[in-house]
Amino acid sequence: MLPRGYFVSGTRCGIKKDKLDLGIINIPSGATCVAAFTTNLLKTDSIIVSQEHLSKTKFVKSIIANSGCANTASGPNGYKVTKEICSYLSKKLNISLEEVLIASTGVIGVPLPKQKIISGIEKIVKEIEQNGKDYLSFAKSIMTTDTVPKIVYDKINIDGKIVTTTCFAKGAGMIGPQLVVFNNRMFKMCPSTTHATMLVFFLSDINISKVLLYEILKEDIIPEFNSFSIDADMSPNDTIFLCTNGLAGNKKIVYKDLQYSLFRESVKKVAKQIVQKLLFDGEGVTRGVKLIIRGMDNISSEKIAKTVASSLLVKTAINGADPNWGRILSACCRAGVKLELNKINIYIGKHLVVKNGQNNFVSDKVVRKVMLNKYYEITIDICSGKNFKEYSFYTTDLSKKYVDINSKYKT
Amino acid sequence: MLPRGYFVSGTRCGIKKDKLDLGIINIPSGATCVAAFTTNLLKTDSIIVSQEHLSKTKFVKSIIANSGCANTASGPNGYKVTKEICSYLSKKLNISLEEVLIASTGVIGVPLPKQKIISGIEKIVKEIEQNGKDYLSFAKSIMTTDTVPKIVYDKINIDGKIVTTTCFAKGAGMIGPQLVVFNNRMFKMCPSTTHATMLVFFLSDINISKVLLYEILKEDIIPEFNSFSIDADMSPNDTIFLCTNGLAGNKKIVYKDLQYSLFRESVKKVAKQIVQKLLFDGEGVTRGVKLIIRGMDNISSEKIAKTVASSLLVKTAINGADPNWGRILSACCRAGVKLELNKINIYIGKHLVVKNGQNNFVSDKVVRKVMLNKYYEITIDICSGKNFKEYSFYTTDLSKKYVDINSKYKT
Repeated sequence: MLPRGYFVSGTRCGIKKDKLDLGIINIPSGATCVAAFTTNLLKTDSIIVSQEHLSKTKFVKSIIANSGCANTASGPNGYKVTKEICSYLSKKLNISLEEVLIASTGVIGVPLPKQKIISGIEKIVKEIEQNGKDYLSFAKSIMTTDTVPKIVYDKINIDGKIVTTTCFAKGAGMIGPQLVVFNNRMFKMCPSTTHATMLVFFLSDINISKVLLYEILKEDIIPEFNSFSIDADMSPNDTIFLCTNGLAGNKKIVYKDLQYSLFRESVKKVAKQIVQKLLFDGEGVTRGVKLIIRGMDNISSEKIAKTVASSLLVKTAINGADPNWGRILSACCRAGVKLELNKINIYIGKHLVVKNGQNNFVSDKVVRKVMLNKYYEITIDICSGKNFKEYSFYTTDLSKKYVDINSKYKT
Repeated sequence: MLPRGYFVSGTRCGIKKDKLDLGIINIPSGATCVAAFTTNLLKTDSIIVSQEHLSKTKFVKSIIANSGCANTASGPNGYKVTKEICSYLSKKLNISLEEVLIASTGVIGVPLPKQKIISGIEKIVKEIEQNGKDYLSFAKSIMTTDTVPKIVYDKINIDGKIVTTTCFAKGAGMIGPQLVVFNNRMFKMCPSTTHATMLVFFLSDINISKVLLYEILKEDIIPEFNSFSIDADMSPNDTIFLCTNGLAGNKKIVYKDLQYSLFRESVKKVAKQIVQKLLFDGEGVTRGVKLIIRGMDNISSEKIAKTVASSLLVKTAINGADPNWGRILSACCRAGVKLELNKINIYIGKHLVVKNGQNNFVSDKVVRKVMLNKYYEITIDICSGKNFKEYSFYTTDLSKKYVDINSKYKT
C-alpha cells in the first residue's frame, strides 16, 4: 500500500488520553515536496516552520504530525518549541533541520508539549526502524474527531514500472478552507482556493520534475479539495504535502506527455476518493449531497454553490430529508449573483421541484424519497442560454451530532 | 398600548392547524407608510403587491398578514391570488385596492389558500369592528416558530400631546436579511443593509412629514435590525412597515428639531427592544452574545462581526459555554479583512483571552463562567491605533433544538 522508500508509523505520546497522537513519515532517500496551506491569516507555527524549511531545502526526509494540539496562537514560545521539536527529530535521524516538515491539528491555543513529543519521537523512530509499514497507526495518529482512518492508494504502470501513490488524510470539522499553493522556490504564496480543515499527505514513488508536480498540485489536487465543505469554517492548520521520491524507477517525467497524463489521472483519482472519505466522515454527517450548478460562469457558480452549501436551513433540511426546496431557491437568490428568477430550475435527484423560479408541484413524498438516501444530487440550472461548464460542489447535512461534538469540544 | 386610530385583530383561518394565522391592521384615517424589504432576489408575491400599492397610494388603510405560508414561488397564480385577496379586503372595508398592504411568512412554495383567507377576512373584519384592540391576537397570528408574541411600545410627550409608537414583530428562523428602504415616491430601491427573517410593523400616531419618516427608517430603524443574526439565512419575505397617522394631534414635524429628535429616540428605543426580543426568541436560542469590534473601519468591522457571528464552530461553542476562543480568533482571521495578527486582543466578558494574537493563558474555568450566562459580550480589539467608532453586532448560539426544528419544518 505504501510507495517505495516511505516508512511510516504512529504512536501515543500523551497529548491525548489513550489515543494515538503522533505520526512520522520517513523518506531516507529524500523526496521532492510541494505544498499548499490555509489562507487563514492565523496560522499554526507548524505551517510557519514548514514554509521556512521548504523554502530552504531541496529534499524532504521526514514529516512529523500530531493531533490533539493545533500549535496555533499557543503563546510566545510556539515557534521556538516547534523548531526545537524539528531539530530534535533531525538530529535523531541525522538529517538537516530543513529536511523536516511538521503538521498539527487539534485545539487552538494549546502549546505543543515538547517533552511528551520528544519521548514520542524516541519511541516512534525505533518503531519505524523495526517495521516502518505501520500505515494504519500513522493514519490513526492524525485523527481528531474523525471516526475512521483515511487512506487511499493507486498503482499505475509507467514505462513498465509500478508507480504507487498513497494518500493519508484527516478531516472531520473546521472544514471550509481556502488553500494556496506554496511555491518554495520563490517563497511566496500563489493564490488559489480550496476548502477543508485537513491534513493531507500524498506520497508517491514516481520520478517527475518539480515544475510538473506544482502543476498537478495546482490544477488537479487543489480543485478537488476546493469542491467540498462541511461547516465552511476555514482552519488555521490546513496543509497538503505532495511528495515524490523517484524510487519507482521510471524515466523522469519532464514534459506533459502520456506518462504525465497517466500520473495526473492517478493522483486525481486518489484525491477524489479521499475527498469523498473526508465528506462522509465530517462531524455528525449523515448525508452527502452533490450540488451541480449549470448555466453560470465559474465565479458565479461557486458563489451560488457555497451559499447553498453553507445555508443552515438547507443543511438541516438535508439532515431531516425535509423536501423544503424553497430554502435552496432562497439561498440561490441571496448569493450575490445577478439572476433572473424565472430562469431558475432546481432538481432534487431527477425531480424538477422548481420550474422557472416557481413551485412545480412535485409531491413532497416523492422528493423526500430521494432525500432519504445517504447521497444524492441537487441540480441548480440557471437557464442563461450560455454554454458554461458545469460546476460541482459537495456539501453535507447539519445534524444534532455536529452541535453535540462542537458544543463541548474543549470542555 | 395601541396608538390612536389603529385597530387590530388576529384569527384562525385554517392555513395552520389550531393556531392563529391571519391578522389585520385597520387604519380608517389612513396612514403615511414607509417600508423596507428583503434584498433576496426571490421575493414573496406579498412584497411585490405591497410595493406596487405603495407606489400608487398616498395613504395606507389596511394591512393584512398571514403566517404558515410564505406566498413565495408558489406557482404562476401567486401574484393573481395575492391581488384578489387584497381586492376582497378593500371592497369589504370600502377602501381602494392600493390602500391595502400584505405581508406573509411561512413555508416557501405553498400557495395562499384564497378561500380560507377570504373566510378569515369575513371573521376578522367583524371582530375588528366589535373590538379592534385585540393586539395579542394580532401578534400571535404572525408567529411561526416564535415561542412568544412580540410587542413593544413607547409613549412620549410632544407639544403636550401623547405620542404612542407600537411595534409588532415576528422572527425566529431564517434570520439574516439584507433589507432596503423602499422609496415609494420614486418606486425604486435605495440600497442599505439589514438582517432578519422578520415581519415588523411600526404603528405610530405622530404627525410627521414623510421625508423625515424615511430618514428615521433609514438612519435609525434599519441599522438596529442590521445589527443581529440568528442563522444568516436571508428570507425572501423580510418586511418592515412604518406607519404614522397623525392622530396624536401634535403640530406636524417637518424639520429636524427637538420634537423630531424625541420621536427618533422613541422609535430607536422600540426598535432596540424588539430586536432583543427577536434575538432571544430565535429558533433554539439559549444564549445571546454582543460582539463588539474596535479599531477597524465600519466595513471591516462588519465583515469580522458577521464572519464570527455565523461561524458554526463559534455558535456551537457559545451553545456549550465551551471556552474555545481559538475559534473566534480563527474566524476573525478568515473574514477577508487585512489584519495584523499580533495586534488582535479578544475579551470574553472582561477576560483578555487572546493578547497580541496569542493565548493569554486565562483559565478555561474562569472564561466558562462568563459563557454560562444567558447574555455576555465578546470584544475583538484590533489595536490599529486608529480611533474608529466601535461596531456592535448581536449573535446567538446554535443548539440541537435549532437542528431539530429545521430538519422537519415541512415534514
